[in-house]
Amino acid sequence: MPEPSPRLGEVALAPPDPARLAIHTRTTQPLDLRACIDTYARHGVRGISVWRDVLQATGVTTAARLLREADMRVPALVRGGFFVAADPAARARAHDDNRRALEEAAAIGAEMVVLVVGSAPDVPLVRGRAMVADGLAELLPFAEQARVRLAIEPLHPMYAADKSCVNRLRDANDLCAALRHRQLGVAVDVYHVWWDPELEAEIARAGAAGWLFGYHLCDWRVETRDLLLDRGLMGEGCIPLRSIRAAMERAGFAGWHEVEIFSRDWWARDQDDLVARICAAHGAHC
Amino acid sequence: MPEPSPRLGEVALAPPDPARLAIHTRTTQPLDLRACIDTYARHGVRGISVWRDVLQATGVTTAARLLREADMRVPALVRGGFFVAADPAARARAHDDNRRALEEAAAIGAEMVVLVVGSAPDVPLVRGRAMVADGLAELLPFAEQARVRLAIEPLHPMYAADKSCVNRLRDANDLCAALRHRQLGVAVDVYHVWWDPELEAEIARAGAAGWLFGYHLCDWRVETRDLLLDRGLMGEGCIPLRSIRAAMERAGFAGWHEVEIFSRDWWARDQDDLVARICAAHGAHC
Repeated sequence: MPEPSPRLGEVALAPPDPARLAIHTRTTQPLDLRACIDTYARHGVRGISVWRDVLQATGVTTAARLLREADMRVPALVRGGFFVAADPAARARAHDDNRRALEEAAAIGAEMVVLVVGSAPDVPLVRGRAMVADGLAELLPFAEQARVRLAIEPLHPMYAADKSCVNRLRDANDLCAALRHRQLGVAVDVYHVWWDPELEAEIARAGAAGWLFGYHLCDWRVETRDLLLDRGLMGEGCIPLRSIRAAMERAGFAGWHEVEIFSRDWWARDQDDLVARICAAHGAHC
Repeated sequence: MPEPSPRLGEVALAPPDPARLAIHTRTTQPLDLRACIDTYARHGVRGISVWRDVLQATGVTTAARLLREADMRVPALVRGGFFVAADPAARARAHDDNRRALEEAAAIGAEMVVLVVGSAPDVPLVRGRAMVADGLAELLPFAEQARVRLAIEPLHPMYAADKSCVNRLRDANDLCAALRHRQLGVAVDVYHVWWDPELEAEIARAGAAGWLFGYHLCDWRVETRDLLLDRGLMGEGCIPLRSIRAAMERAGFAGWHEVEIFSRDWWARDQDDLVARICAAHGAHC
């Protein structure tokens, strides 16, 4: 492991509250939902953001029961969105799937569905962004009905070609401002936005507007060896995690610290040990 | 090869002038400078942007003679910059090296030195950006003396950790506006900036201000397999090359179309064939 080198680590902050720590099931990909719950709970982690693959493998009814019995809180169901496609039938299928995600989220008591908005190489970015706005507008009444929030997660510009045409917090905020609905907000994932000169200003804007819903943690490895599956544990990279937390708290955020790490390296290791390291890294670097 | 899928390929434009085509020596990395010159000239390419590795391997005096004898024009010497380091001695070494780059550029008749401004994992981005401004201010008198332009090239946000803390054209333009010097401008590399919702506005701004110096071409592969060495030939990816050229021309740009492709795949193939394909792709997709 390289030595941690937080960029703005000099920011003086009390350590974060471990009671706010949550983990995304994808972070411990080798584990099924039951094993995730058991492992997180054994380390005192009370929050779990549930990915749809493990949810569907377990079944929604069983999953809801397991989560309830373990007294786990669910910040987010991950993930919906994917509003962009040249083919209208594909967009209609995404809408139907997003409605199912909202129902699943309601069934397991998730506060929000995280949205990766989508992008397609054969759809110009400006047209894709319009499809996102249309898709959100169409989905919001169902979110209201399900009493589940929708959180737009801007993805790093390196995913603009095929995963998300919303690549800055500013653009996610602009969508929220245009659609203005109390169940529509943003999720700030440090991995995607840490480089952005406007980050602090846009966090403040989201907080003031009341739509700062989610906060996702990991780190940016130097050197990053893969565009998708080489995220670092907090402290392994160069993201100024304390500075960003300070900005989130100044903006009024008091929600979950959701750890979301996609890493072939970490998935290949003992997952119980990984969760222990996550707890330690949360205290030491976040 | 995947089928080309230019995002905004519907823009109606006359094909670009082949006389404006230039190639970066790094694009044909297996070739030394003499072989680059011979190969480009054989295909009718009259512009060559020279990387310092091939220049130093050939020697500046010999290089200048070869370029002159072949009647090649040199849009850029690539590359200087690297202003960011925690250690002041490292910053002083970068300054000295940048002065040498300016002398080399003058010696081979290069119009500009392209600047990759640098970033360091142990230097906060805001502090790094201040070092860039300071380093540029210190270097500009030498650029004036050498009669060589300096072009700030914003790099993609995926390089923010260790290669460049200037990741948007807006930030490069802001530096030019702050330092305001007729020999300081920007180079727009489509690979780094195509995702940016502000791209067209910032190209227009640079053009209106008179500092739109460089234009670099390649393509963004879907999927990109490596953060550094998987650029595509124009038409292999999803960048709306015609739309961006239209924006450049609306902004008054009439300079070189410099092809800069870093690709393990293309370097492994016949370089003469690659240059032929570059000429064809320039006409078909740019």
